Amino acid sequence: MDNKENGKTQRQTKSRKPARPGRGGRESAKLRIIPLGGVSEIGKNMTVLEYGDDIIVVDCGLSFPDEDMLGIDLVIPDITYLEERRDKIRAILLTHGHEDHIGAMPYVLRSINPPTYGTKLTLGILKNKLREFKLPWEPNLVCVSAGDTVKLGVFTVEFIRVNHSIADACCLAITTPRGIVIHSGDFKLDTSPYDDEMMDLTRLGELGRKGVLLLMCDSTNAERPGYTPSERKVGKSLEYIFTVNSDKRIIIATFSSNVHRVKQIIDISARRGRRVAVTGRSMLNIVGAAVELGYMNIPPGVLVDINEIKRYPPEQLTLITTGSQGEPMSALYRMAYSDHNQVTLGSGDLVVLSSSAIPGNEKLIGRVINELCRNGVRVLHDDSIFEVHVSGHACQEELKLLQALVKPKYFMPVHGEYRHLYANRELALSLGMDSANIFIPEIGRVLEIGSRGAALTETVQAGKVLVDGNSVGDIGNIVLRDRRHLAQDGLVVVVASVDLDERLLLSGPDIVSRGFVYVRESDELMEQLREVAINSLFVGIKTRGKIDHVSLKNRVREDISKFLYSKTKRRPMVLPVIMYI
Amino acid sequence: MDNKENGKTQRQTKSRKPARPGRGGRESAKLRIIPLGGVSEIGKNMTVLEYGDDIIVVDCGLSFPDEDMLGIDLVIPDITYLEERRDKIRAILLTHGHEDHIGAMPYVLRSINPPTYGTKLTLGILKNKLREFKLPWEPNLVCVSAGDTVKLGVFTVEFIRVNHSIADACCLAITTPRGIVIHSGDFKLDTSPYDDEMMDLTRLGELGRKGVLLLMCDSTNAERPGYTPSERKVGKSLEYIFTVNSDKRIIIATFSSNVHRVKQIIDISARRGRRVAVTGRSMLNIVGAAVELGYMNIPPGVLVDINEIKRYPPEQLTLITTGSQGEPMSALYRMAYSDHNQVTLGSGDLVVLSSSAIPGNEKLIGRVINELCRNGVRVLHDDSIFEVHVSGHACQEELKLLQALVKPKYFMPVHGEYRHLYANRELALSLGMDSANIFIPEIGRVLEIGSRGAALTETVQAGKVLVDGNSVGDIGNIVLRDRRHLAQDGLVVVVASVDLDERLLLSGPDIVSRGFVYVRESDELMEQLREVAINSLFVGIKTRGKIDHVSLKNRVREDISKFLYSKTKRRPMVLPVIMYI
Repeated sequence: MDNKENGKTQRQTKSRKPARPGRGGRESAKLRIIPLGGVSEIGKNMTVLEYGDDIIVVDCGLSFPDEDMLGIDLVIPDITYLEERRDKIRAILLTHGHEDHIGAMPYVLRSINPPTYGTKLTLGILKNKLREFKLPWEPNLVCVSAGDTVKLGVFTVEFIRVNHSIADACCLAITTPRGIVIHSGDFKLDTSPYDDEMMDLTRLGELGRKGVLLLMCDSTNAERPGYTPSERKVGKSLEYIFTVNSDKRIIIATFSSNVHRVKQIIDISARRGRRVAVTGRSMLNIVGAAVELGYMNIPPGVLVDINEIKRYPPEQLTLITTGSQGEPMSALYRMAYSDHNQVTLGSGDLVVLSSSAIPGNEKLIGRVINELCRNGVRVLHDDSIFEVHVSGHACQEELKLLQALVKPKYFMPVHGEYRHLYANRELALSLGMDSANIFIPEIGRVLEIGSRGAALTETVQAGKVLVDGNSVGDIGNIVLRDRRHLAQDGLVVVVASVDLDERLLLSGPDIVSRGFVYVRESDELMEQLREVAINSLFVGIKTRGKIDHVSLKNRVREDISKFLYSKTKRRPMVLPVIMYI
Repeated sequence: MDNKENGKTQRQTKSRKPARPGRGGRESAKLRIIPLGGVSEIGKNMTVLEYGDDIIVVDCGLSFPDEDMLGIDLVIPDITYLEERRDKIRAILLTHGHEDHIGAMPYVLRSINPPTYGTKLTLGILKNKLREFKLPWEPNLVCVSAGDTVKLGVFTVEFIRVNHSIADACCLAITTPRGIVIHSGDFKLDTSPYDDEMMDLTRLGELGRKGVLLLMCDSTNAERPGYTPSERKVGKSLEYIFTVNSDKRIIIATFSSNVHRVKQIIDISARRGRRVAVTGRSMLNIVGAAVELGYMNIPPGVLVDINEIKRYPPEQLTLITTGSQGEPMSALYRMAYSDHNQVTLGSGDLVVLSSSAIPGNEKLIGRVINELCRNGVRVLHDDSIFEVHVSGHACQEELKLLQALVKPKYFMPVHGEYRHLYANRELALSLGMDSANIFIPEIGRVLEIGSRGAALTETVQAGKVLVDGNSVGDIGNIVLRDRRHLAQDGLVVVVASVDLDERLLLSGPDIVSRGFVYVRESDELMEQLREVAINSLFVGIKTRGKIDHVSLKNRVREDISKFLYSKTKRRPMVLPVIMYI
């Protein structure tokens, strides 16, 4: 266990009791809610509902590595709990098509393969993703629409329309033997959505009247007062921007998955006689899928290939691009750094970042803006006076509205860092909810609801699995600790060959350093370092009795570390390799 | 040169012409303005003014490393240009006491030691800093007040009051043989400053009436419309917060150098009968200096030692602390993680972050807020509805006001990333300035102003010098590139001993890896890797003719890299060390 803990995954929690697969008998009378991700963190949303011999899973997302997870590509939930109960899993239910809700699917489907339910766009995006992965089996994807109900073991799941920054998003009303559980997914309330499909408050109100056992509620914007503006607000800003910049080519960067945003940009352009070209792989993918699946009805002749844009006057062109987070090598990044094949930007261009910075990306975005300005490009972004972006998540008034409509017996804030869960709890308290009925969840911690009430009980195996290159889960704390050490001060390798019989230094010590000092300008230091290494080795070799290989290595490491720290106040990793001949 | 370029400093620019020390004769008729830092970047502000045999330097700041400068502690300007002309340097002039204006002084004073002018608080803070460094000589610090004028070679420098987020800040009006140059330093206009010393617009207007040759103007907030609110606005918010939280202990984190903020907090507390304790090293330092120098008149009995706080009821206490940027090991961080010796936080506490996030610190701050919430602490920060912080920099209307008052012939936006300089240029254009008279500066690029006009001319040696541990300037691009490589995928060291005569593998290959995979769980991979290494070595050793040591190493490196990439899609650094015996 310890070995696994250090080597394989970063457990946030350990089993308090050994998990028993196939619970039954009296215990089956309890409904178990187990978040495997998405609580006390942003991303990798995944929640397990278990009752007797039935399990359903809500969402299956990934998250992006923290800045101290050096070299890691992405992070997925530890699904050991599910792997140990694969026969009980009736379904994975996807609320919408964002990476933090579907991104772990290609990895999770390698080891479990239950039927997966989602709306048309959600599954369309998922299929695109899965195409890049080789799965051991054909995924079993079941398409549903908002309003549909599916029976899954003891559970009955109803998909209910919500608004969000991606089309075709749903929340779930899950009827269990203990009562109705509502999982909000990610949501906002848009009374004037671009596809005219408002969040189905009526249905949620009906369920509230019937009685809801538990509401699991999006907390992302729980710290923000008021309402999140409608997507149409962005349209109005863009209309104005297009009007006053009718002499410019307009390049708009946004999240590719925001189908309604993209659709609005295309519609505004079309009304003004502009052609629209799309660039960036994910933008092409998603626009392609959205058109194909009927989410985007584009007037003929408006979309043009990015290779054809030279045929149109710049002021009659709109380009829609990826790169709103400043991602290196994204289409906008390449445009900014004059490295895009079809687009060269200059003073005739206006770039609009129709997005907000995901925390941690501020500097990347800033660099792209600097580079655009250097090329004389005008840039409008989230901080400017125009409202060129709105959030996809509910603010405080919307959260209170959902809570007040649903009137749940128990409340569990989900989807957010601790501060957001805490703020959502405060909202519930402000509506008069009993604090004993509010449960701030932890990853792997089980909420059990039985006939006598609800309680947080045991903690099952859960946590982060790191994906690096094509390996999943083989990078753990030790490897990351070493990467951090190497990143900080580099390394010094000391190699020597020792004649065991004669107790002679046969060759070396050779000293190789990387990331420590610039060796060509550090002759003196490297010479002194060699002296220290020779002395250290001699003392070790000449000691009477059998040479203790481990303590010889340790001695060399310590002597060198001490010397280098005294000289440079740095602590490079020191790796002694001694060969005995 | 090349060697130095790679090894020692990160040059942003190279000499286009070899620099000639001691210019004289006809060329001395030109005024030369050379930014050595603070343009196209935030921080390490430093500007050189040169005329004939006289040089003066405005500010001497540091900046913090970008996230790709792994292991670097801080960054200072490359002052080679000054070192080569040390006899000409008449003075360093400090506009105020922030790190980005004085932080490089301990390093710069090691190699040059001109008289340094600054106001009382600025020099007080500087002296505190210098105490921690051993300098080869006693620094020559000359205290001035706003309104003072000093003669420095051909230059006459007048210190003029500005408002900023630190007390006793000045801008400079520098009379040169070519005309008056105004350097704004960092500034804002506060019509109701807490010390009643408003920015001296009258004097600036007088100079404008006389005629100003060049305005160098702070650009930090040039993208923000409107005015920066007065420091007193924060006081009003805090008054309200204190009123509605009279039952709580209040902990306020802010920038230690914001003397007026700290003073306001103390005054509000005193009026409400609260005692105030201060914690955090830099907060103690600066409050100490401010009290000593007369910037903070505190009613007796209000300040109490942090060790004494147990003697007072919590709701009668205010704590002022460092850590508003979430800095690990700062006082607030330690409180949040229950690791502060005197302060344990809980639900009876309110924490106010009276600050805004410096870009790049958002995640650190978020972590501290999460941890505070976990302890049941209420947290108010910049994003909340209360205005608990105001900027220290002028927004667009203030920038336009300064430009309109001073009416410079030439304009150079300084202090900011390119986007900010660009935005400030737009403001000047909007006031009717001729674009030919606006110069967006680059680090090291010389602006020459002669009788026939002004032009950007040659570029002198300038750029970043990296400080890591106690070494200055020995970390360059190669070392950083290696650190990034090591951080990304770790390293694999392959060591072997070879008998040169017999062409035998005497020992090894031994394989050591760090930060690559968890070796204990990668037996198979490591075994295969050994095979690859053996094969690669054999082919190299057995080749006819003399063994080419370099190509043998390269062969081993390539074979192993290729094998590892095919297996893992990762590219660890591969270091072959072959000993010949």
